Amino acid sequence: MPKTIACFGEVMMRLQVPGHDLLTQADTLRYSFSGTNVNVASALSRFGHTAHIVTTLPASPLGDAALAHIRKLGVATSLVRRGGRWLGMYFLETGFGPRPSRVTYANRAESSFNTAPSDAYDVESIVQAADVVHFCGISLAMNDVVRAQTKALAAAAKAAGRLVSFDCNYRPSLWGEDGYASAKPHYADMLRLADLVFMNEKDAMHILGMTTSRQDRRERLLELIPAVARTYDIPVIAGTHRTVHPDSTHSLQGYLYKEEAFAFSKKLSFPVYDRIGAGDAFASGILHGVLEDRAPERIVNFAAAAAMLAHTVSGDSPMASEPEVERALAEATDDIER
Amino acid sequence: MPKTIACFGEVMMRLQVPGHDLLTQADTLRYSFSGTNVNVASALSRFGHTAHIVTTLPASPLGDAALAHIRKLGVATSLVRRGGRWLGMYFLETGFGPRPSRVTYANRAESSFNTAPSDAYDVESIVQAADVVHFCGISLAMNDVVRAQTKALAAAAKAAGRLVSFDCNYRPSLWGEDGYASAKPHYADMLRLADLVFMNEKDAMHILGMTTSRQDRRERLLELIPAVARTYDIPVIAGTHRTVHPDSTHSLQGYLYKEEAFAFSKKLSFPVYDRIGAGDAFASGILHGVLEDRAPERIVNFAAAAAMLAHTVSGDSPMASEPEVERALAEATDDIER
Amino acid sequence: MPKTIACFGEVMMRLQVPGHDLLTQADTLRYSFSGTNVNVASALSRFGHTAHIVTTLPASPLGDAALAHIRKLGVATSLVRRGGRWLGMYFLETGFGPRPSRVTYANRAESSFNTAPSDAYDVESIVQAADVVHFCGISLAMNDVVRAQTKALAAAAKAAGRLVSFDCNYRPSLWGEDGYASAKPHYADMLRLADLVFMNEKDAMHILGMTTSRQDRRERLLELIPAVARTYDIPVIAGTHRTVHPDSTHSLQGYLYKEEAFAFSKKLSFPVYDRIGAGDAFASGILHGVLEDRAPERIVNFAAAAAMLAHTVSGDSPMASEPEVERALAEATDDIER
Amino acid sequence: MPKTIACFGEVMMRLQVPGHDLLTQADTLRYSFSGTNVNVASALSRFGHTAHIVTTLPASPLGDAALAHIRKLGVATSLVRRGGRWLGMYFLETGFGPRPSRVTYANRAESSFNTAPSDAYDVESIVQAADVVHFCGISLAMNDVVRAQTKALAAAAKAAGRLVSFDCNYRPSLWGEDGYASAKPHYADMLRLADLVFMNEKDAMHILGMTTSRQDRRERLLELIPAVARTYDIPVIAGTHRTVHPDSTHSLQGYLYKEEAFAFSKKLSFPVYDRIGAGDAFASGILHGVLEDRAPERIVNFAAAAAMLAHTVSGDSPMASEPEVERALAEATDDIER
Amino acid sequence: MPKTIACFGEVMMRLQVPGHDLLTQADTLRYSFSGTNVNVASALSRFGHTAHIVTTLPASPLGDAALAHIRKLGVATSLVRRGGRWLGMYFLETGFGPRPSRVTYANRAESSFNTAPSDAYDVESIVQAADVVHFCGISLAMNDVVRAQTKALAAAAKAAGRLVSFDCNYRPSLWGEDGYASAKPHYADMLRLADLVFMNEKDAMHILGMTTSRQDRRERLLELIPAVARTYDIPVIAGTHRTVHPDSTHSLQGYLYKEEAFAFSKKLSFPVYDRIGAGDAFASGILHGVLEDRAPERIVNFAAAAAMLAHTVSGDSPMASEPEVERALAEATDDIER
Amino acid sequence: MPKTIACFGEVMMRLQVPGHDLLTQADTLRYSFSGTNVNVASALSRFGHTAHIVTTLPASPLGDAALAHIRKLGVATSLVRRGGRWLGMYFLETGFGPRPSRVTYANRAESSFNTAPSDAYDVESIVQAADVVHFCGISLAMNDVVRAQTKALAAAAKAAGRLVSFDCNYRPSLWGEDGYASAKPHYADMLRLADLVFMNEKDAMHILGMTTSRQDRRERLLELIPAVARTYDIPVIAGTHRTVHPDSTHSLQGYLYKEEAFAFSKKLSFPVYDRIGAGDAFASGILHGVLEDRAPERIVNFAAAAAMLAHTVSGDSPMASEPEVERALAEATDDIER
Repeated sequence: MPKTIACFGEVMMRLQVPGHDLLTQADTLRYSFSGTNVNVASALSRFGHTAHIVTTLPASPLGDAALAHIRKLGVATSLVRRGGRWLGMYFLETGFGPRPSRVTYANRAESSFNTAPSDAYDVESIVQAADVVHFCGISLAMNDVVRAQTKALAAAAKAAGRLVSFDCNYRPSLWGEDGYASAKPHYADMLRLADLVFMNEKDAMHILGMTTSRQDRRERLLELIPAVARTYDIPVIAGTHRTVHPDSTHSLQGYLYKEEAFAFSKKLSFPVYDRIGAGDAFASGILHGVLEDRAPERIVNFAAAAAMLAHTVSGDSPMASEPEVERALAEATDDIER
Repeated sequence: MPKTIACFGEVMMRLQVPGHDLLTQADTLRYSFSGTNVNVASALSRFGHTAHIVTTLPASPLGDAALAHIRKLGVATSLVRRGGRWLGMYFLETGFGPRPSRVTYANRAESSFNTAPSDAYDVESIVQAADVVHFCGISLAMNDVVRAQTKALAAAAKAAGRLVSFDCNYRPSLWGEDGYASAKPHYADMLRLADLVFMNEKDAMHILGMTTSRQDRRERLLELIPAVARTYDIPVIAGTHRTVHPDSTHSLQGYLYKEEAFAFSKKLSFPVYDRIGAGDAFASGILHGVLEDRAPERIVNFAAAAAMLAHTVSGDSPMASEPEVERALAEATDDIER
Repeated sequence: MPKTIACFGEVMMRLQVPGHDLLTQADTLRYSFSGTNVNVASALSRFGHTAHIVTTLPASPLGDAALAHIRKLGVATSLVRRGGRWLGMYFLETGFGPRPSRVTYANRAESSFNTAPSDAYDVESIVQAADVVHFCGISLAMNDVVRAQTKALAAAAKAAGRLVSFDCNYRPSLWGEDGYASAKPHYADMLRLADLVFMNEKDAMHILGMTTSRQDRRERLLELIPAVARTYDIPVIAGTHRTVHPDSTHSLQGYLYKEEAFAFSKKLSFPVYDRIGAGDAFASGILHGVLEDRAPERIVNFAAAAAMLAHTVSGDSPMASEPEVERALAEATDDIER
Repeated sequence: MPKTIACFGEVMMRLQVPGHDLLTQADTLRYSFSGTNVNVASALSRFGHTAHIVTTLPASPLGDAALAHIRKLGVATSLVRRGGRWLGMYFLETGFGPRPSRVTYANRAESSFNTAPSDAYDVESIVQAADVVHFCGISLAMNDVVRAQTKALAAAAKAAGRLVSFDCNYRPSLWGEDGYASAKPHYADMLRLADLVFMNEKDAMHILGMTTSRQDRRERLLELIPAVARTYDIPVIAGTHRTVHPDSTHSLQGYLYKEEAFAFSKKLSFPVYDRIGAGDAFASGILHGVLEDRAPERIVNFAAAAAMLAHTVSGDSPMASEPEVERALAEATDDIER
Repeated sequence: MPKTIACFGEVMMRLQVPGHDLLTQADTLRYSFSGTNVNVASALSRFGHTAHIVTTLPASPLGDAALAHIRKLGVATSLVRRGGRWLGMYFLETGFGPRPSRVTYANRAESSFNTAPSDAYDVESIVQAADVVHFCGISLAMNDVVRAQTKALAAAAKAAGRLVSFDCNYRPSLWGEDGYASAKPHYADMLRLADLVFMNEKDAMHILGMTTSRQDRRERLLELIPAVARTYDIPVIAGTHRTVHPDSTHSLQGYLYKEEAFAFSKKLSFPVYDRIGAGDAFASGILHGVLEDRAPERIVNFAAAAAMLAHTVSGDSPMASEPEVERALAEATDDIER
Repeated sequence: MPKTIACFGEVMMRLQVPGHDLLTQADTLRYSFSGTNVNVASALSRFGHTAHIVTTLPASPLGDAALAHIRKLGVATSLVRRGGRWLGMYFLETGFGPRPSRVTYANRAESSFNTAPSDAYDVESIVQAADVVHFCGISLAMNDVVRAQTKALAAAAKAAGRLVSFDCNYRPSLWGEDGYASAKPHYADMLRLADLVFMNEKDAMHILGMTTSRQDRRERLLELIPAVARTYDIPVIAGTHRTVHPDSTHSLQGYLYKEEAFAFSKKLSFPVYDRIGAGDAFASGILHGVLEDRAPERIVNFAAAAAMLAHTVSGDSPMASEPEVERALAEATDDIER
C-alpha cells in the first residue's frame, strides 16, 4: 500500500559541464536540482508512494526553477518553505577513465536551507502528514541550527510512531579536521532515534569509533553492524560495498541486517554513466521493501538493482519504476566470483 | 557491375532523445527518417548501385523532410508516391549498460504507407526499372492491403525474372496474439516467391513451425535451413547469430546457404553505438556479394563486417562504403574462441 | 482567495524546429506538452490558484513525459486518466517576417483523449473538487464521444453551481466543409451552459449565424455580443481584437461584456516571440479577475497584459506571475492611436 | 512544362558561427554547402524543374558531405565531377543592427573547381541534357582555365540552341586592382552569348564602362539597360534595386527588360534573417517565369517575392515552393511610397 | 602610443539562459566571466593598449576557468591574486519586448574579492606597472575592506602621477536603504582622487545631493556637471543619456566635459542584443581618446559608437577594434531629430 | 624553477564533428586551434613555465580567433607574427570501436606559416627570451623555406647555449614517395643540433636507415637508440611504445635514455577519449622533468602519466596540472603483465 514519506534536507543546484570537458574548456552548463532528499523522494514516487521534500528554498527565480524541476520529478512540494536568499550550488566536471570527475562547490553556508530560523518547519504538520521521515547525515554537518532542526523533527516523528529513516552519508570535506570526533555525538543522537539506518562497517569504525581485529571488509561488517544495532537499538540497518574495477566498471553488493540476520544481494557489476545519487537509490529501494513488508533477500536485491540503474541515468535523481528495477534484477547475472 | 534495386516498405520518422536521457528528462530530439527499405537502399547506394525506395509519403512538410533526408543518403526517390496524411514515427531512448534502450511508437496504422490504396504502386514500371526487388516481413504485419501489395509486387518481379529478396524480420509486437499462426501463410507465400531470403533457425521454428530435437542454435541452423530451402525452393538463404556479452559488447556471425552448402563468416565482436539497422546492413552486404557473383565465404564475411560497421554510426541507415567495409574486415580479428 | 479550477481538453506534444529553420533543413526538435487546458491551468497556477487538467494520457513513456512536463508547469495532475495508446502531436516551424509559421499535425484522431470511452471521467469527483470548470471549443470538434463528455461535464458543473467557462476557439481545419453548420448546435449547447464565454463578433457571425449591417469590427462587436449574451443567457463574455502590423508586431485589445456594459483594455502593441497560447493567457487573466471579483476595466487590462506577455515566452504555456503582469501593464503605453 | 537546367560554378563550404557570436567568442560552427549554381538549382527544383549543377568536387569526405547536402536540396548531381584535392570555404559571422556581418574566406584558388583541367567537363553531354545553362560572373574572376571553361560551355550551349543565362555578379574583392578593366572583355564575351542576363545600371557603368548624365538610379537604369541590350544583343535583362533602411529592414524592387519594355515589380520591404543567396532566388524566379512563358509583370513580381522569401530562411539556398512564393506575393503590400 | 591600464574590481561568473527562456523552462546555461574591470580591460586591449585586471580569484577550477576566459579576451592577468574560496555569480534571463531581462545574483558577499585581506594587493607594483588605474563605484558598495582597498590604490596612483579613472556606476540594490546617504562620503573621496569621472546629472543629484530647478535632463546636465567638476576638482567628466523607445530600440548620446566645455556625440539609435557592459565600452572609448589626446568631439563620438557596438555582441565584454568602431561611427546617421 | 620555452611550428584549426557522426550526417562542427607547438606550450604552462609559441598567423578573424584560443590555454603569444592570408585546417570525424577516426586536411601549403618569408622570425629575440626552443619534425616536411627557418632557429639557439628540443614526429602523408630518403638529411641536421630528441626505434630504422637483426621492438630500441645518441651526439632521447588492444583501450610505456642508461615508465593502460596531442603531452612531461633536473625514472613515469591524461580530455592540447599528473600516476597500476 502506498505510503507518504517526508524527506528532510538541502536542495542544491547541480551545474554540469557537458560531455567530458573541463570548466576551462567549455562555455555551457546543464543544470538540475537535487539533494539526498530529492533523490529519495524521486525514487519513492516512482515506486508508487507520495514523497515530499521538507526544505527551504529562496523566493527567487532560482528557487522557482528548483521547485519546477522537483515537481517534474514527481515529488510533492507542498511542505517546502520559501525564504532566505541563496541556493547551494555545485559544479560537476565529468572525468574519463583515469581522469576522475571533479566537484566544485559554491558557497552553501549562507543558503536558504542553512540559514532558516530554528522554528522554520512546522514539525507537527509534517509528522501528521507522513508515515516515514527520512534524514541524511549531510544535514548534521551544516551548523547548530540545522542539527537542532534535524533532531527535533526526528524526535517528533519517533514520538508520533512514524518510521524514522537515517542515512549516515558522512562527508569528510564538510566536517573539517577532527571531523569524526565532532560528528560522533550528533550521529549517536540520530541513531538512537532511527528505525532504519544506512551505513556500513567504515561508518561504525570511523564515526562511532568501534574497533575490530579483522581485515576483510565483509568480516568487519558481520562483526560491527550487529554491535551497532545493539548499541543504538536499531531494528534495521542496510548498506553497500562497492568495488571499482580497473576498467572503470563498478560492482555493488547490498546487505540488510534485520532481526539479527544478514541478507546479501547479488553482487552486481555495471558501467557507470552518472555516479551521483546511487546511494539514495539504494536507500529508496530498502525503504520501499520495508514499507511493503517484503522478505529481506527480496528487499536487498531490489535495492541493489535500483542502485545499479541509478548509475545509468543522467542527473542525481533515480528515474526507474518498480517494473524496470525488477527487470534489471532479473537480467543481471550474479558475478560474485569476479 | 552496378545494378538497380527497388526496396519496398514503410518509411518512419525516428525521434531520438540525445545522449542517454529519458523522454521525461530531456526537451530536445534528433530526428531522421528510415525503414528497412531506406537502410538497404542507403547501404547499396554506397556500394555503387542505384537504389530506389518504393513507398508512400504524405504530401506535407514531414513528407518533404523525409524525402530530403533520404535523398541525402544517396537513395533514389523517383518511385516514391505522395499521398495520405500521416507518417509513422517512433521515439528512441538510448539505454546504458544494464538499462536497455526503449522504443515508443506513435500510431502507424493510419500512415500514408499503410493506407495507400490497393493499386497505389505502378508495379509494371517498378519491375521494369529494377534488377532486384527487396521486401521485408514488417510489411506483412501491417494489414491486408499492404500484404496484397507486397505479394503482388513480388509476384510481378518473379514473373519478369527479377531477383526477389526477402528479409523475414518477424516483429512479435506487430502481430499480436496468435502471431506466428497468423503470419505463417503470408510468410510462406513470400518464401515461395523469393530468390534470396534472410532468416535463421528461430524463424524456421517459430514462423514456419518446423521442429528439431537439437538444442544448440548452430546445429539447429544446420538442420533447418536446408529444409526451408527445399520446402520453399529458395536458392540462397542467409542470416546471423548474435551474442550479447555481459560487458555490453556484441558478437555477430553470419551464414550463407547456397547450393546445399553453408559458408560462415568470422565471428566479429564490437561495442555498439546504434543498434538499429544492422540487420539491414547485413542483408545489403549479402545482396551486394550475390549481385557481384562473389564466392560465398567472401560474401558472408563482407556482410558481417558491413553489419558490424552499421553498429558504429548514428541513425538506422548504414553509411560505409565498400573500401571501408573491406578495411574493417581486414582489421577484425576472428574471436570465435571467445 | 485562491480557487480550484479544472480544465478539460486534449494534451498534445509540441515538436518545434529550433530557430527559424524548416523541417527539411534541421535535424533536431524541441518538445513540450500543451493544450488549451494546460495553458489555462499553467497561467492560473501562477496567479495562485490550484489548477487541474482533466484529460486522458497514454500509459507510455510519452505519457509519462507529458505528465512530468505539466507538473513542472505547476499544474495539478491527480485528475488525469491514463489509458489508450497515442498522444496527439504537432510540428511547428517558426516563420520569419513575411514567411509565416507552419504547423503540421500528426494524427490525433486516435489519441488517448479522443478514444477515451464515454464514461472515462469521474464527473462527480471533478465537480466536487473544482470551483470552476473550463472548456474549449476544440473539444467539440473531435468526435461524438468527446462532445458528449464535454457537455456532460459542463452540465454537471452547472447543476452543481460551479462556474462554467468556455472558450469558443473555433478551428476551421478541424471541422471540415460545412464546418460552421456542423458546429453551431454543439456551440449553442455549450453557450447555454456557460457562465463565462470567450469569443468575438466573428464567432457570433460565423458560428452562430448572426448578421449585422456594420462593417467596422468594433461596431459589430458592440452590436452582436449583447445579442449573444441575451440569446444564450451568458453573464460574462470576453475576447480580443488583434491587429498584425506590417513590421510583424501585433496589437491586441481586450473587451469584457458584463451586466450589459463593455469594458475595453488598453490597446497593447508588442513584438511576438511565440504566438501560440496567447489566447489562453487572456482567458486566464479574465478568469482570475472574475474569481477575484475585480472591476471590469481592471480585469480586462490585466488579461490583455497577460496575453501580451504570453507572446514573449517560448512554448504554449503562459509563465507570468501576477506581479509580472501588473508590471508589464503599468509600463505599457496605450498606443490606441497607432 | 518542367525543364532541365544545368548550373555551372563553384561549390563552397559555408561555416557559420551560431547566433550573433564572433569567431573569437564561439567554439561551434554550422556548415552547409552552396554556390550560385547550387542556389539557383535548389530554387528551380522547388519550382518543379530538374536542376543540375556542373562543378568539380574533391573525392574526399568533404566532397561527399557536399554532395549529400546538395542532394538533400533536391538538386541533381549526376553531372558533378570528382577530382582535385580541396574545397573552397568561407566563414560567416552574423552581425546585428549596426554591426555588419563578416565573411572570411579560406583559400579557394587551389580548390577542385579552380584547378580542374581545361577539358574537365563533358560539354557535349551537358548541352544534350539541358534546356538551359546558367552561369555566374564569379566564375570569370577565378583564372584563365575556368574562364575558358565557362565561355566554351556557354558557346556550345548557344550553338545547340539552349537558353544561356548569365548573372553578372561582379565581386570587387575577387578582381583586385584594375578589376573593372580586367573584367570587361570577359563579361563582354559572356553577354554576347547570353539570352538572359542579370545586372543593373551599376554593372553597365562600372564593368562595361557606359556613362550617363543622370543621377537617379532608376533613371540610369531606364537609360542604360536598353543600351546594353542593343550593344550585346540580349533578349532579356533583369535585376533589382535594393535599399537598406536605418531599422535594418531592406526593400527590394525587381525589373525585367524584354522586347524593349520595362516591367517593375512591387517594392517589397522585409526584415532580413539570412542575406546570402537572395540574388540567386531572384534569378531563379525570372528563369522560372521565362521558361513558363509568363507575362513580364507576373514574372518580375514572382521573382521579387522569391528573393524576399530567400532572406527569411537560414542558409544560402532558397527553400520556397511556387505556392509559397505566390502566397507571399499576394500578402505583401506594395510599400513603394515608403 | 599604447599605454598600460590597470582595472580594479570584482570578476563574476555570468550564467545566461540561452535564447529567451526562463530558468524554470530551460536546462542549460551559457557561462562567461566579467566585471566592469574585465570589460574596460577587454575594450582597451582591442584598442591596442596593455590592459590588466587587479582582482582576487579563488584557486579552484572556477577561478581557473575565469582566468582562462579573461586571457582569451586579451586581458593581462599577471596582477591577479588567487585566494579565498568563492566566486560571485549572476544568472541572466534575457527578456523579449515588453518582458524585461531578469538578473538573479548568487551570494557575492563571501567572494574571494570581497573577503580578500586589507593588504591583499601589492599597491606599489600596480602603480609602477600602470599609466592609468580605473575604478568602479560597485567596489565602493561591497564592504569596508574593499572600500579601503579601492581608496588606497587610488590615492597611491594619484600620488605617483598616474591617471585615476572612476566610473560612478551606482547600483541601488547593493546599497540598500539610505543608500545614497551611505554612499555619498565614499563617492566624494573617490571623486577628489579622480582625473576622469563617468557620471551624469542623476548621479550628481542622487549621490552627491546636488539640486537644480530644471526639469529637462540635458539642462540639468549642463548645470550640474560643471558644478561637480569645480567642487571635486575633476579635469574630465563624461557620461551618457539613454532613451529606450517603445519598439525596444535604444538611443544613446554621450557627453564629454573638459576645460569648462561640453562636447556631445551624435545621438545613435540601434537595436539591442546584449545590454550589459555597454557603459564600460563607453568609458573605454573615452579613456582611449584621452590617452591618445584627441579632440573632445572625436573622443565622445568614438566612445558613443563603441558603446553602441557593445550592445550588439553577446557577453558583457566589448569586442570591437578601433577600425570597427570608426566604421560604425561613420555609417551611423545622427538621428537626433527622432 | 620555472623556465621560458619557445615552441616553433604551425598552428592549425581543428574542426571536429560532434559525437561520432560523419561529415555527411552532421551539420555542426566544434573548432579549436592547435599544433605540436601549442600543445607542448599548453602543457608546460600548466607545469608552471612560461611557454611561447613562435609561428605566423593571418591578420584575419580566423587568426584573431586562433590567438584568443591559444591565450585561453595559458600560452604566451607575444612572439607570434601576423601575416599571410590562410590558416591550415583539418576536419576530424571521431570513430567508434572498429570504425577508425578520420582526418581530412584542408589546403595547408599556402598557410601563413608555410608562406612566411625566410627572414620572418626575429631569431635573435627568440633566443634571448627562451631557455629552451622546441621543434617538431612536421616543420621539416613543409617546404624549403620552413626547413631553413627551423634549422636557423635551432642553430642560433644551440649557439647561444639554449636547450634545443626536437620531436621527430615523422608523418608519411606529408613527405610523399621517397619520403624517408628525402627526409633523412633534414632530420640528421636537426639531430645534430638537438640536446633532447623524441623518437623510437622505428624512426631510427626508417628515417635514419639503421638496421638491426632483432625482431622484438624493445630489443630493437635497446640496440638502436644508443647508436643514434652516439652518431648524432644527443644527450637525451625519449619516446614511447604504444599498444592498441582489441577492446579499443591503449597501453603506453615511455622510455628515457640518458648517460648511456635506459629508464622505463610503468606500462599504463587506459581508454581513449581524444587521441590527438598525447605525444606532445609526453614530450612536455620529459621536458619538464629535464628542466627540473629530476631522476630519470621519475621523469619518464611523469611523462607517461601526462600522456595518459592527454587521452582523456577533448581537444589536442593537454590540460593537466602537475598535481593532477602526479595523482594519476599514483593511482595507476602497472599492468605490464597484461
